Amino acid sequence: MSHTLKNKVKITSRVNRIIGQLEAFKKGIEAGDECYQNVNLLSSCRGAINGLLLEVIEDHIREHIVDSETKKLAAESGEELIDVLKSFIK
Amino acid sequence: MSHTLKNKVKITSRVNRIIGQLEAFKKGIEAGDECYQNVNLLSSCRGAINGLLLEVIEDHIREHIVDSETKKLAAESGEELIDVLKSFIK
Amino acid sequence: MSHTLKNKVKITSRVNRIIGQLEAFKKGIEAGDECYQNVNLLSSCRGAINGLLLEVIEDHIREHIVDSETKKLAAESGEELIDVLKSFIK
Amino acid sequence: MSHTLKNKVKITSRVNRIIGQLEAFKKGIEAGDECYQNVNLLSSCRGAINGLLLEVIEDHIREHIVDSETKKLAAESGEELIDVLKSFIK
Repeated sequence: MSHTLKNKVKITSRVNRIIGQLEAFKKGIEAGDECYQNVNLLSSCRGAINGLLLEVIEDHIREHIVDSETKKLAAESGEELIDVLKSFIK
Repeated sequence: MSHTLKNKVKITSRVNRIIGQLEAFKKGIEAGDECYQNVNLLSSCRGAINGLLLEVIEDHIREHIVDSETKKLAAESGEELIDVLKSFIK
Repeated sequence: MSHTLKNKVKITSRVNRIIGQLEAFKKGIEAGDECYQNVNLLSSCRGAINGLLLEVIEDHIREHIVDSETKKLAAESGEELIDVLKSFIK
Repeated sequence: MSHTLKNKVKITSRVNRIIGQLEAFKKGIEAGDECYQNVNLLSSCRGAINGLLLEVIEDHIREHIVDSETKKLAAESGEELIDVLKSFIK
């Protein structure tokens, strides 16, 4: 199962914004901007990625675990979610 | 003070890789790929951004706090670091 | 629904270990140990709490979302999980 | 170098509060309270440990890096900080 069209547009525009932030960070590094500005910009990108990841995980929980067609599919999606959470709750 | 040229090239190529991962994630969303693949891809981006942020913070500690020219500059860079850490140790 | 007895014993002993680490950290602070040792000890506690949290969340996903008796209960537990994730994916 | 007395008292009382939260979590697990309540309680402990860790790191930056007596000591403390940050920015 994949994402609904409405969600797709929303997610895509958030990704574009994050790519824009990363481009700005890159320009700042190349231009020799103050280190602190660069660190701060990258820290914002990190926050934006976290927010996006959370949203994609929310969709996964609602659509692929709670609303799955069979218990077996729910269990598979549940284990997938656990794997993802393991990779960043450290 | 800003980053050395060698570091700049290294940082820039890492940013480009992360942008490439985000583009792949976007394509996956648009193509309707399996949710889990997308979540995993975005989780990798998150890890890559964290690694890059850590590296930029390391430079900041070594070059702008430890090796600062005056105590006053060290103190300013120290407070900047604390602000950044506050934004993501939550 | 709550945790199985076997899980309870395992979780309880992990909590006791973390409390032991926090007591050691407190003694280190009171004894005036090297700051670095203390920071390191507290950073280990943090890792241990994260590991425990992950385990409790895994139980929650498997027992209360995937294996819930009704779709309504699964949905409630799913929203609870999302709330928890929101509190620390920042 | 170690922490000032005033800071010690403050840190100690925060540790005691966190231990209290962990004891409450343990009681909740033993009593078979709702999973969600337990997850939430543990998530609060995690937040409290993060806040404390941040404070100890702030002291480390200000007292042991910025205000260190020699450049050599500042460099050592800087590397210690980088090691700690590496352990949890993942």
